[in-house]
Amino acid sequence: MSDRIRAHYLIETPYSLERAAEVMAGEQSCGTFTRLAGETDELREQHGARVEHIKPLESVEAPSLPTPAPPAGSGRPRYRRARVTLSWPLANLGPSLPTLVATVAGNLFELKEFSALKLLDLELPAPFAAAYPGPQFGIAGTRELTGIAERPLIGTIIKPSVGLSPSATAEVVRELVEGGIDFIKDDELQANGPHNPLKARVDAVMPVIREHAERTGRRVMYAFNITGDLDEMREHHDYVVAAGGSCVMAALNAVGLAGVTHLRRHCQVALHGHRAGWGMFSRSPHLGMSFVAYQKLWRLAGVDHIHVNGLRNKFSEEDASVIASARTCLTPMFAPPSPGCEVMPVFSSGQTADQAVDTYRALDSTDLIFCAGGGIMAHPDGIGAGVHSLRQAWEAAVAGIELDDYAREHRQLARALETFRR
Amino acid sequence: MSDRIRAHYLIETPYSLERAAEVMAGEQSCGTFTRLAGETDELREQHGARVEHIKPLESVEAPSLPTPAPPAGSGRPRYRRARVTLSWPLANLGPSLPTLVATVAGNLFELKEFSALKLLDLELPAPFAAAYPGPQFGIAGTRELTGIAERPLIGTIIKPSVGLSPSATAEVVRELVEGGIDFIKDDELQANGPHNPLKARVDAVMPVIREHAERTGRRVMYAFNITGDLDEMREHHDYVVAAGGSCVMAALNAVGLAGVTHLRRHCQVALHGHRAGWGMFSRSPHLGMSFVAYQKLWRLAGVDHIHVNGLRNKFSEEDASVIASARTCLTPMFAPPSPGCEVMPVFSSGQTADQAVDTYRALDSTDLIFCAGGGIMAHPDGIGAGVHSLRQAWEAAVAGIELDDYAREHRQLARALETFRR
Repeated sequence: MSDRIRAHYLIETPYSLERAAEVMAGEQSCGTFTRLAGETDELREQHGARVEHIKPLESVEAPSLPTPAPPAGSGRPRYRRARVTLSWPLANLGPSLPTLVATVAGNLFELKEFSALKLLDLELPAPFAAAYPGPQFGIAGTRELTGIAERPLIGTIIKPSVGLSPSATAEVVRELVEGGIDFIKDDELQANGPHNPLKARVDAVMPVIREHAERTGRRVMYAFNITGDLDEMREHHDYVVAAGGSCVMAALNAVGLAGVTHLRRHCQVALHGHRAGWGMFSRSPHLGMSFVAYQKLWRLAGVDHIHVNGLRNKFSEEDASVIASARTCLTPMFAPPSPGCEVMPVFSSGQTADQAVDTYRALDSTDLIFCAGGGIMAHPDGIGAGVHSLRQAWEAAVAGIELDDYAREHRQLARALETFRR
Repeated sequence: MSDRIRAHYLIETPYSLERAAEVMAGEQSCGTFTRLAGETDELREQHGARVEHIKPLESVEAPSLPTPAPPAGSGRPRYRRARVTLSWPLANLGPSLPTLVATVAGNLFELKEFSALKLLDLELPAPFAAAYPGPQFGIAGTRELTGIAERPLIGTIIKPSVGLSPSATAEVVRELVEGGIDFIKDDELQANGPHNPLKARVDAVMPVIREHAERTGRRVMYAFNITGDLDEMREHHDYVVAAGGSCVMAALNAVGLAGVTHLRRHCQVALHGHRAGWGMFSRSPHLGMSFVAYQKLWRLAGVDHIHVNGLRNKFSEEDASVIASARTCLTPMFAPPSPGCEVMPVFSSGQTADQAVDTYRALDSTDLIFCAGGGIMAHPDGIGAGVHSLRQAWEAAVAGIELDDYAREHRQLARALETFRR
């Protein structure tokens, strides 16, 4: 790969595609609205962003985002769509993630020449892999921390999301670990509120997990949500480590890239990335950022797990998009000898035993965390049965057996399907 | 103000407004898709988000964002719009900015019940003002640092944005300070790239600014763009301070909330907030966050200045929106005895002498930084004339004189209007 940064966009513009692409390139490198004395040809050649490729797509009658009309005289505008690739010399910014974001996803979203602009993908030169830590544990490390060699980690989210006391949380954890759960996470809303402070939660939860591990040898991973200010996150991380925990969680968009990178450099356990707020990037097809681009930033910053929704989720994301997101987490970001930075996708949101087989068929991998909240906790025969129903569903998936066939001999699965199938 | 957090939203939904608002409240507090054993009435009463107000607006035929159709049988759906106010007890999260973001701007954007969802405003209880530093210098402090008592600070952005060497940057700075500029900033693309490393830039630029200050008593503020990883930002901040600088700049969205808060707690000089990437929050009327809500987060985190575009800017933002943004920066966030956290709005993007009078008329304040890049650097008579043209334009504005009248006796202004009026 060259020492240039490449970014791929979907654009829509009432101007010519060539002109629009040049405006993007100028705005995000050495241009302004008028050519300046210092802007020599040599400087443009060395530091200007370059339009690498334009692939015209369809045109539409109306602008997808509110956009000032182009100057009169050009007739009623049509809005042309295209895929555009720009590139920048690494010398402009160096391998800096925050400056990368300001460069590839900065002012250009506001340009009036565009009635749609979405960042689709990023290709980063190897110096980024050298400058950033990337995932510390990733897929293999997470399996090692939990002792689960091949199957997906069956996980859950403490519910109700907020409102439980530390001791009530520990009671739920006790039922979960006894039920055979592999992974538990705090809700993204539950961090360090006065009704359930992080340290009190660690104090209540970790003895349950430690005692269970000593008794059974099973090391359940609990992702404590340490989202907060930076000193607070470091202190809470250390508290989790001292208590024998193996994972901390951060709400990525809320903490931000510099904070997560800093946390990662300090971190001794798995770093679970929650993407709360992701809808702001993703809900519009005409604005924002694809998950392919987004997750590369967080993988470099160093998360080990990242959320991807799940099939038939309670949100608006379609199944194909969920699977594409999970697959991109498993795809190397850099060619050897740089690390691939693969991370574990976390399936979550409205997940129950019912989605396991379809998830496996679509992804063709068990390198994932499969989280069900209500899908475990609301199982009619209790939490343990909820966990078993998911284990059974994944056994069926990997064995290539239809869920309904497997359910005939597996009561918890049968009851889950009865209850949760919609 | 009560100890509840309130957030105002614009929503659009094919469901009843009451049901939709309850889904938001449930998702962002103690709900999941099915009611759980632990979710007692008492827990819901104490920790559930509350729907405070629903103000129905118009309906539309088609969803504004792609949304799965509601279940069949309800006929062809109409999409109802409303303003909705939710509230949360502070006990759920405590005064934590990152957890606030995960709560008021988290998963809810993805909910399939909504074909539009935008955060319009936030009301935060006083404990947030106690927990966060807020602006260290703000308006009065920025005036003190620069010695400019009443008029706007006339500012510029180093252009070309990237590509100049440190010494070439210092040459531009020399012309600017001799021309009478008050404020200079790095471009958001120019942070610590190998072709112009931050320290080398400080070494080249600060002697020019110091020498000018010693000679004239005028303390020009240079906002060095220290955007980067956290340790790098702290080190660069210290370097700027040691060189006698009075301002550092960070690209807010790229660094993130925890990083900016941490930087502010360390910071000894004015903190200039650049909102590169803001278009992702703002371009869609149906998704994202208003600037009113957005800037409250960064004011609490502690920026002293924040960008608001400018009238007739090169971006897609309309003038009324620009003025509303600037006004909200000048509006106290908390009632006494908590601090108001007012910050200086930064007008920028395609600004020239031509916009001064209209800006003053619309805002009725001179508490702002008025930045022109090309509008100074591309003045036909040079940089000094560009600076003078802006000073003259603001003199006219404050004196209530029409620009064209004032231009008759002020040559630099006249030449600027000839050149830049579009």
